Amino acid sequence: MTQSAAYQRLTARFARIATIQEAAAMLGWDAAAMMPEGGAAARGDQLAVLAGLAHAELVAPQVADDLADAEAAQPDPGADQWAAANLRLMRHAHTRASALPGALVEAQARENSACEKIWRQARSRADFALVRPALETVVRLVREQAQALAPALELAPYDALMDGYQRGIGAADVAPVFADYETFLARALPAAEARQAALPAPVRPAGPFPVAAQEALCRRLSERLGLDFTHARLDRSAHPFSGGTATDVRITTRYDEADFAQAVLAVVHETGHALYERGLPAAHARQPVGEAAGMAAHESQSLIVEMQAARSDAFLAWLGPELHAAFGGDLAPYAPGNLARLWRRVERGFIRVDADEMTYPAHVILRFRLEQALVGGDLAVADLPGAWNDGFRALLGVTPPDDARGCLQDIHWYDGAFGYFPSYTLGAMAAAQLMAAARRAVPGLDAALGQGDAGPLLGWLRVNVHGRGSLLGFQDLLRAATGKPLDPADFEAHLTARYLG
Amino acid sequence: MTQSAAYQRLTARFARIATIQEAAAMLGWDAAAMMPEGGAAARGDQLAVLAGLAHAELVAPQVADDLADAEAAQPDPGADQWAAANLRLMRHAHTRASALPGALVEAQARENSACEKIWRQARSRADFALVRPALETVVRLVREQAQALAPALELAPYDALMDGYQRGIGAADVAPVFADYETFLARALPAAEARQAALPAPVRPAGPFPVAAQEALCRRLSERLGLDFTHARLDRSAHPFSGGTATDVRITTRYDEADFAQAVLAVVHETGHALYERGLPAAHARQPVGEAAGMAAHESQSLIVEMQAARSDAFLAWLGPELHAAFGGDLAPYAPGNLARLWRRVERGFIRVDADEMTYPAHVILRFRLEQALVGGDLAVADLPGAWNDGFRALLGVTPPDDARGCLQDIHWYDGAFGYFPSYTLGAMAAAQLMAAARRAVPGLDAALGQGDAGPLLGWLRVNVHGRGSLLGFQDLLRAATGKPLDPADFEAHLTARYLG
Repeated sequence: MTQSAAYQRLTARFARIATIQEAAAMLGWDAAAMMPEGGAAARGDQLAVLAGLAHAELVAPQVADDLADAEAAQPDPGADQWAAANLRLMRHAHTRASALPGALVEAQARENSACEKIWRQARSRADFALVRPALETVVRLVREQAQALAPALELAPYDALMDGYQRGIGAADVAPVFADYETFLARALPAAEARQAALPAPVRPAGPFPVAAQEALCRRLSERLGLDFTHARLDRSAHPFSGGTATDVRITTRYDEADFAQAVLAVVHETGHALYERGLPAAHARQPVGEAAGMAAHESQSLIVEMQAARSDAFLAWLGPELHAAFGGDLAPYAPGNLARLWRRVERGFIRVDADEMTYPAHVILRFRLEQALVGGDLAVADLPGAWNDGFRALLGVTPPDDARGCLQDIHWYDGAFGYFPSYTLGAMAAAQLMAAARRAVPGLDAALGQGDAGPLLGWLRVNVHGRGSLLGFQDLLRAATGKPLDPADFEAHLTARYLG
Repeated sequence: MTQSAAYQRLTARFARIATIQEAAAMLGWDAAAMMPEGGAAARGDQLAVLAGLAHAELVAPQVADDLADAEAAQPDPGADQWAAANLRLMRHAHTRASALPGALVEAQARENSACEKIWRQARSRADFALVRPALETVVRLVREQAQALAPALELAPYDALMDGYQRGIGAADVAPVFADYETFLARALPAAEARQAALPAPVRPAGPFPVAAQEALCRRLSERLGLDFTHARLDRSAHPFSGGTATDVRITTRYDEADFAQAVLAVVHETGHALYERGLPAAHARQPVGEAAGMAAHESQSLIVEMQAARSDAFLAWLGPELHAAFGGDLAPYAPGNLARLWRRVERGFIRVDADEMTYPAHVILRFRLEQALVGGDLAVADLPGAWNDGFRALLGVTPPDDARGCLQDIHWYDGAFGYFPSYTLGAMAAAQLMAAARRAVPGLDAALGQGDAGPLLGWLRVNVHGRGSLLGFQDLLRAATGKPLDPADFEAHLTARYLG
């Protein structure tokens, strides 16, 4: 099918934008994994200039004309669904970028960065009052941002923020799912705790575990899970992440010689993200329709590998001997049953990033409710610590001993990111839903995992998730892959089987 | 002094251009030192897009208007010599960038890249005929480039190419210097060979030398020479280089467990480049006047550290015990006299990059003469191998056994780089001239080197070279620092003292 000249110009422009963003992604990886401290100031300038260039390409006057011409010229959308979806996504990106006044964008960049710096001090001192004025500024600007985006996107203000992380998903999609989970948790968590208390205490493998041995194991494991290191690197950074580009993914982890679990499980998680990037449709590379389908979709891919596959009984049975071969020592701690008790423990902890898969959604539900109230003006920043602690107690029955273990623990809000938190739990739920569908579709899936072979799972994900890029929205992607939109039932069934079975 | 609004716009624009180029420099470093093979295609696109964005900024219509306005508004140039020089350099950069038709730039990018790929095969097979057609195309386009640049710059065509590497230096500056050196070499080389033959044969330290020990030593040595690793990294790549940016320099080397000399001397050399970047005037960062003064100036800084300082008797007396402490084994090979005989040998070799400091200029002189003839149309590509061998025999008295050790050995021409080679020898000569001036100005310089302390030399270079950025052209920089323009006498005196003394 021949595309209009306007559409051709748009694809060239969006390819240029994506290529600039690739450069920025590499520089972001370098900043976290390689850059000497003295390079930070210049790196900030480099990233700001690249972001400015990409933004300028996106809001150039020619784009509006080309979009209008390409939309008018569009033939039967059934004829090329990829091009039709791509054009819609271009329009969406242009609308988002054009809706914000330049002065607001600059003010947010400046104030978010300033607040984030103060937050680091405030967290280390557990002193919310220190960062409160800066957070008030950040929240005021986020409200302006939401108000500016909402009419352009025809969404409610908070939904307009959520849309920036997981397009097409709003509070109305999330609230009932989270309410359902809250009910489930109130019943399941005490039951899981009781069952756990009745099991033998897990034995921790005895270290030290040399970093070189951990690193070699992590790389082998990532390769085994399907990551091709002619298109990837594994490095170290303060916080594990997956970055880079689709043909050159960069994953990182950190090593603790006393405990290999942190490094290994982080690499498994980041490998899930990396495999998604590697599996995106190459024919649509550097086009909006060729990108990953959003943050929740991305998290579903890290969690399906980490939580669904790698922590399954089948995979642990293969992994235990591998770990023992790498580190030696007593065999007992590497018995699959012991690893399961060690890595599948529920706990009413205060810190989200340390939470187990059953309590994690409670951390997210709390933040989802609080950030809606903050953005909507129903909660003042001054009242955040109290509201946090009340909400936490209501969900998990315990009260944070200080704000460092309460409303100061996450960087997100202090850096201006509102609407992002739900993605973590949407991803966890989608991972369970996709895994259930994959198990139905691929009979030998668990048997293969028992041989350390994630190939059958990966093959199914390539077709049903990765290869679809952004052709479908999050809900439609789930419908196409699993037969239904987001449904907490599969996640709850997974937790029931694993923690109450 | 208040600058005109036009000048302010220009400095903002050139800062943006420099920042884009910093991003590209980092991606170039990554491609050589970090990138998995599978990232190469995307990286090429990223670099091309960044180059295109920087070029577009430089040739934008607004630039010509701002340059004209700023030049007209300029007050007494004595009032702010940095701003005056900066404006001249902006004009120069704009003129160079605007002189080339877009179609030619694209054709060169395409054909140079294609030729370079064929050259790799041709060199490995020693088969000049294989690459001859591609090189003919490259040379044809280089002639067009030179013809397009020449009138804009008011230079002869070959000088217009040279100007791209070392601004303001042309064949007329170089030819008499090289002729002088050719005469010197005809006398000095046989004498050096005779003296060398009369000395005891050097003893090679016995390996293996573990890579980790070499790497740690290289880093210590680089720090000792003055490189601050909060603003630098040392990594590995196939060919050693210095890259990155002024506040985040990235040097690389390669390791051979059988011989540490290659890695160590390469790191010393690259440290010289890196120290130059680190010493550029921060007040003029990201402005043309704040950049290094050209390729010959840059090479003078790597060679003053590697050849003048680190291979001096004084420094070797300090370095020998350091090397022995790092690697152990017999003491004898680490005696300063032995290291001197090992690392200061003359030889009539065929390969430029392996050449000693006395014969190296012969390799450059040959290329300088041949590339002038190629660009001027006086030498056909088909006749290059013969002309190369004749010229080589005339200069060094031996004939390359094949073209791989002759006209196929260097990438430069096959990648479209003509006019670059002279910089190597101009740098070597300038290094000797600067070292002689530094010794006159800083009495304790050699005594400090004898303690492994390059501080006095570095202090002098910071003031007399690094801190001047591009305020002065190459010849004026030498005049200001040494009292005279480029003069081969200091280099010849250095060689005489070291090899005939």
